[in-house]
Amino acid sequence: MKTASKPAADADIQRYMQEVGQRARAAARVMARAETAAKDAALMAMAAEIERQRDALIAANRKDIDAGKAQGLDSAMLDRLELSAARIQSMAEGLRQIAALADPVGEITDLNYRPSGIQVGRMRVPLGVIGIIYESRPNVTADAAGLCLKSGNASILRGGSEAIHSNRAIAACIQTGLKQAGLPEDAVQVVETTDRAAVGELIRMKEYVDVIVPRGGKSLIERISAEATIPIIKHLHGVCHVYIDDKADLDKAVKVAFNAKTQRYGTCNTMETLLVARDVATKVLPVLGRMYQDQGVELRGCEATRKILAGIQAATEEDWHTEYLAPILSIRVVENVDAAMDHIAKYGSAHTDSIVTEDITRARRFLREVDSSSVMVNASTRFADGFEYGLGAEIGISTDKLHARGPVGLEGLTSVKFVVLGDGHIRK
Amino acid sequence: MKTASKPAADADIQRYMQEVGQRARAAARVMARAETAAKDAALMAMAAEIERQRDALIAANRKDIDAGKAQGLDSAMLDRLELSAARIQSMAEGLRQIAALADPVGEITDLNYRPSGIQVGRMRVPLGVIGIIYESRPNVTADAAGLCLKSGNASILRGGSEAIHSNRAIAACIQTGLKQAGLPEDAVQVVETTDRAAVGELIRMKEYVDVIVPRGGKSLIERISAEATIPIIKHLHGVCHVYIDDKADLDKAVKVAFNAKTQRYGTCNTMETLLVARDVATKVLPVLGRMYQDQGVELRGCEATRKILAGIQAATEEDWHTEYLAPILSIRVVENVDAAMDHIAKYGSAHTDSIVTEDITRARRFLREVDSSSVMVNASTRFADGFEYGLGAEIGISTDKLHARGPVGLEGLTSVKFVVLGDGHIRK
Repeated sequence: MKTASKPAADADIQRYMQEVGQRARAAARVMARAETAAKDAALMAMAAEIERQRDALIAANRKDIDAGKAQGLDSAMLDRLELSAARIQSMAEGLRQIAALADPVGEITDLNYRPSGIQVGRMRVPLGVIGIIYESRPNVTADAAGLCLKSGNASILRGGSEAIHSNRAIAACIQTGLKQAGLPEDAVQVVETTDRAAVGELIRMKEYVDVIVPRGGKSLIERISAEATIPIIKHLHGVCHVYIDDKADLDKAVKVAFNAKTQRYGTCNTMETLLVARDVATKVLPVLGRMYQDQGVELRGCEATRKILAGIQAATEEDWHTEYLAPILSIRVVENVDAAMDHIAKYGSAHTDSIVTEDITRARRFLREVDSSSVMVNASTRFADGFEYGLGAEIGISTDKLHARGPVGLEGLTSVKFVVLGDGHIRK
Repeated sequence: MKTASKPAADADIQRYMQEVGQRARAAARVMARAETAAKDAALMAMAAEIERQRDALIAANRKDIDAGKAQGLDSAMLDRLELSAARIQSMAEGLRQIAALADPVGEITDLNYRPSGIQVGRMRVPLGVIGIIYESRPNVTADAAGLCLKSGNASILRGGSEAIHSNRAIAACIQTGLKQAGLPEDAVQVVETTDRAAVGELIRMKEYVDVIVPRGGKSLIERISAEATIPIIKHLHGVCHVYIDDKADLDKAVKVAFNAKTQRYGTCNTMETLLVARDVATKVLPVLGRMYQDQGVELRGCEATRKILAGIQAATEEDWHTEYLAPILSIRVVENVDAAMDHIAKYGSAHTDSIVTEDITRARRFLREVDSSSVMVNASTRFADGFEYGLGAEIGISTDKLHARGPVGLEGLTSVKFVVLGDGHIRK
């Protein structure tokens, strides 16, 4: 990983970023043909170096924390920024886990003879150069670099300015790992300037960057989506639903609906709206309402809900659209599975939606007709996650429809090309 | 297919397109759950109606041809515009072939139990609403509508203004087919205005359109890419190469290199630059040069080529970048396979490139390292085609890396979502 000298003035940013892009493109060709053993050796060496440099990483992180406090960052932001010994350990473990994953690159599938006599198949290949734009959490530097590297891509990492010292220190460990494995230093580059203009360049350098993966809050994602001319793999927001059908097993319904909301509040796959079939609302809502309120979850309901759960606030039109990321839940009583699917189509964010039912016909319909990246039957929305799905690790969860949808692992960082084998074959 | 009343004035275009978008979105939900039998019935009924309406189609097309002549369209354009009886027949046949293809929608793959006890799999689903923007050839109306329909998508078709009468007449046949099969009329909509502002709307209606497929010349594609805020599946250009290695079987080399250039000149998978290893250049170039010149192909060469083929024009830097789409070929003598791959990486368009060699190590390297949508060994670049690859039909050839790469068939018009089955499972 090369951290080319920091540009002296704003006017140099464009030139600097172009240079970073050219180097990444050159490194990408080497990475695309790198053997799995070399990539794994680099990942293991990075992990070891991160452990060895623990104290140096904590010291570098201290600078960011102190600067953050001086700038008045809030405690949630400072918490995300912090590199504790435990977080450093888990960063190293994460790299080892990536090393242990199967290498997707080069896999040839569907190789068949065609009537003309040629053999046609598909080969999985890296995307090329991936630009990662992220905020605060410095561990993303190692995670993202590791995933891009294993999938045979070169990466350009642009972290938040508040984490620059931490990111540089992690970058030094990554560089050591690449060197030890004989891989090009430019395979992972950390953008050395904290100037925002660098992001503007990165998301428009079509000739050098193949895809942008932004990781952060909704405002960052929206800004980058609006300005980028390069394709983006992005996660926008998660307005996830659980629908309790009148044919549901109510014990399962209570378990799933409680877990989907309360297992963690701040995650994108947390349920934000509970839909309940009218015929079971009076049975299931009093139980669930008490459990949520005991847990400190604020409830907002439609009119029918408020007749059952007296005293809760009325849900507004805006509530149905809202990703709370907090202990707040909106509840709506609906007529049946059709009304539930209509609600999800209108207000959902196509992230993760679950039906609780014992009726196989409704389960089949929900699975096919709900147009979300994850659709579930009798399971908590909290399962929508790369590790839970067996992808091994994820670069994020995509709410886009093209290319990668849902949790994005190594495969989402690759593409597929056609390979054709002949013996002097020509087209008639 | 609904052809909402034509807007009265420019100011109405936005409102009109929004209405088209809303209808398409509603129809897309119905199409996503439509059974294969209904979709196939619609395709067969459309084919029958097109055959039945042959004379009406020819009459409508006559209006476009006459208007085109009056406007001074060139003969190539007029040829593309023409709907002969044979072309109408092949349009109908095309729809029947799409009906005969396997339905990709709903296929569940990789359904496995995870350690938590949930089952996780992937289900192939339609993209939703597809906007097709195309020029002149009216048969695209039927082809594109058929492919979108079979893959469970709603489509919005915007053809060239020069073909508006032909497109409306084909649209009427499509509408008849949809009705007969009981599918929503809005599943295929032809934009009824020839105003360019309609295209500007179409490529920015994010809430109603999921992907844009532009089909036409490079300038159309570039304009749409620059302005669209919706993801695009596009074909930009094809600067395709054949590299004759010094370990090539020279008989195969001559066959493949001649076919790749001369089998058709105007197609994107036609070879535009021939690369020849220095050690065999004096053997192979005189033979090939004579064949090309007998065929009327103009040759442009590097210095070394011109020493072997006396009298041919010098190739300029621009030639290496050029997609001629004409009987012109640039030829370069290179040192070896590495120099050939360097040339392709620098000047190629990542479309289709082929090596001719008997050396398996070089073949393996070329297949892995050349970053093009189709890479070939001992086969003509002209094979890069949906029918030849067994996709059955293609909506186009993508030169993008994300989502669909190379010939795009039904599968490229679909996406994959995760399905999760549990029995009241919750996340610990």
